[in-house]
Amino acid sequence: MKAEIITIGDEILIGQIVDTNSVFISKALNKIGIEVYQITSVQDDHEHILQAFEDAEKRVDVVLITGGLGPTKDDITKHTIASYFNDTLVQNDQVLAHIEHLFKKYIKTPISDINRQQALVPSKADALMNRFGTAPGMWLENKGTVFVSMPGVPYEMKALMANEVLPRLQEKFERPYILHKTVLTYGLGESAIAAIIEEWQDNLPSFIKLAYLPNLGRVRLRLSAKGKDKLAIEKEVDRQIQMLYPLIGDLIYGMENDDPIEAILGQQLKKKKQTLAVAESCTGGKIAEMITSIPGASAYFKGGVVTYATESKEQVLDVPSETIAKHSVVSAEVAISMAVNAQQLFKTDYAIATTGNAGPTKGDADAEVGTVFIGVATPTKVFAEEFKFGNHREKVVNKAANKAFELLQKEILKN
Amino acid sequence: MKAEIITIGDEILIGQIVDTNSVFISKALNKIGIEVYQITSVQDDHEHILQAFEDAEKRVDVVLITGGLGPTKDDITKHTIASYFNDTLVQNDQVLAHIEHLFKKYIKTPISDINRQQALVPSKADALMNRFGTAPGMWLENKGTVFVSMPGVPYEMKALMANEVLPRLQEKFERPYILHKTVLTYGLGESAIAAIIEEWQDNLPSFIKLAYLPNLGRVRLRLSAKGKDKLAIEKEVDRQIQMLYPLIGDLIYGMENDDPIEAILGQQLKKKKQTLAVAESCTGGKIAEMITSIPGASAYFKGGVVTYATESKEQVLDVPSETIAKHSVVSAEVAISMAVNAQQLFKTDYAIATTGNAGPTKGDADAEVGTVFIGVATPTKVFAEEFKFGNHREKVVNKAANKAFELLQKEILKN
Repeated sequence: MKAEIITIGDEILIGQIVDTNSVFISKALNKIGIEVYQITSVQDDHEHILQAFEDAEKRVDVVLITGGLGPTKDDITKHTIASYFNDTLVQNDQVLAHIEHLFKKYIKTPISDINRQQALVPSKADALMNRFGTAPGMWLENKGTVFVSMPGVPYEMKALMANEVLPRLQEKFERPYILHKTVLTYGLGESAIAAIIEEWQDNLPSFIKLAYLPNLGRVRLRLSAKGKDKLAIEKEVDRQIQMLYPLIGDLIYGMENDDPIEAILGQQLKKKKQTLAVAESCTGGKIAEMITSIPGASAYFKGGVVTYATESKEQVLDVPSETIAKHSVVSAEVAISMAVNAQQLFKTDYAIATTGNAGPTKGDADAEVGTVFIGVATPTKVFAEEFKFGNHREKVVNKAANKAFELLQKEILKN
Repeated sequence: MKAEIITIGDEILIGQIVDTNSVFISKALNKIGIEVYQITSVQDDHEHILQAFEDAEKRVDVVLITGGLGPTKDDITKHTIASYFNDTLVQNDQVLAHIEHLFKKYIKTPISDINRQQALVPSKADALMNRFGTAPGMWLENKGTVFVSMPGVPYEMKALMANEVLPRLQEKFERPYILHKTVLTYGLGESAIAAIIEEWQDNLPSFIKLAYLPNLGRVRLRLSAKGKDKLAIEKEVDRQIQMLYPLIGDLIYGMENDDPIEAILGQQLKKKKQTLAVAESCTGGKIAEMITSIPGASAYFKGGVVTYATESKEQVLDVPSETIAKHSVVSAEVAISMAVNAQQLFKTDYAIATTGNAGPTKGDADAEVGTVFIGVATPTKVFAEEFKFGNHREKVVNKAANKAFELLQKEILKN
């Protein structure tokens, strides 16, 4: 049971937008046991779209198409689908009534012929009602292959997927159970982990696939399994994960559950009714932004200070100017002072602080690009560690943020 | 001159990651006049990858491949390339020396055979040195079609593109000039605009294509042109855009720039030798993070405060508790107080502040989800405006950050 996603639109191919629709559709299909075999993005070009349809039909059972359904001249998906199915467009009265309703209630400009043409669908298609827009989805079948066309506007597509497409696919196809579980590790690189767990990996049953997902000093291990017996699959994947603990248990800090470390430690803080503040220099707000990207963060996150200029560290965070003069602004002493003062300023149980040089050029301090000190203040102690995160600005910031969360989590687990 | 991007990795097809690599590559290729004809994402599967290579070679002149170059067993791109080119892997001494250097300097664990195998490349390939990682890029040619393979780790891929791939493509191929200009409009829907500018659109020269990009109440009109004569193309696209003003001039609020607004206003502040601070509540550090993502931001950005808890607004930012009690924490008065106090605390010319409710549930204040007040303090005045940004948490934060930059920029241009 395989699917292909075809996204249509020049805006994808010139890099003007990020194709997040495919991410949503892939996740949704995986959840109901449909494997996405390929994602194909093509231009707004009649011949090219036809070719993509033809190729996809050979490869998969379901083709999900997004984009190109707008009312204007550059939107050609509907006509191309009609031509692929040797079909003509006919007016769908239900869709027309819906368009007239939308215009009356929300849009409030006079309805034009261009808008009314949105009610034309191929005669062989089932129209799928689009709650949030004027372009209907379409469902067509050709010798057992299902073609579904949806608008490219994300919230319109998502509602169509949930209300129309997924229920119909579940109804039509028998599907296996697909399970992905991802083990989160830190502390060792991809190849070092691979060496330790090689035998374990070689003995995985054939229906379980392992993938290494390294990113910024961390490695995620994803186990993917597929089969008919949901319970047996879940049991075996869990058993295999348990077998990892004697091998690399000290590196494992959690399971993905789609939850990043900042969400996991947030849950831990919330459970313990403890609070957190941050003081950021080189990470420039990234740590606060990551923490507050988690809904409900206000339960444990009091706030933070971004002291980007050296004088702000003194004026806002009360880092003694003598400490800066003696040890330089990029130092363990300054990181410690920032952490302790943030902890006091925000009256929290924990605080984390960063000071360093993210590059590309040396800043106020003479520290080498990539040098970062991370300070952690807990209810019982304070310390700082030095790291070298390389010479790539964005990477330095992300690595520093991730490492700060790791250091903090270790302390939370101790207290 | 056409290119195809092939991204390899199950993580894309199960929706575990967003494929931002394709966005970067598409933009970079367009800038040097190479059109991206298709983007194809395939699984870590030998046969499937081979088929994708074969199909792409029929369609385009350049195939850019990312992903699947890690040292572990699920990374099969290198072996698949070798098999596609009927080639064998041989050790590249320069790559091996680089890997040994990286391990010695940064990784500091013993180097293993698995790591050393990263120095194996197909004998027919030019190895492209990867400054930031152990997996080299590869450049191969087959009957005039170029195949380039790069790691999937974004910062490694980006450096390889900039330092190796783009210069080589520019050297090898004669390319046309490609220009995209995007006119930003608000106030009317896609079909209403289309009706007004229909005649203008019908009379566009054949080398200029028009696309409508509607999103959240705004419509962007993208003009794309391609040809040999750079100056003539630029002149004609500008002339066509000028012709839009008599038709929809009252809807146009600007042109889309490659530089995000936080970079543009940074340049403006730097030129005027003025400085900025921020005070964030509902945006939680996002604004500081966006400002500091621009290299050189320390020239004008002093820092910021994230006051996520109501008491932090009082304790850290000195917002009077009476103001909060009287007007609620989500109010114009609090936004104004936050902006003024941040301006004083950091001793800056400008400060921007946000207070609101990003959802998903109501916070300390009773304000409706999506309500945000943005305060702006300038050298001569302070004010706040209220916005409703809908009920999607991430969207609320992003919209608030963008709107804050818009308000600030207007003030910078006045002063």
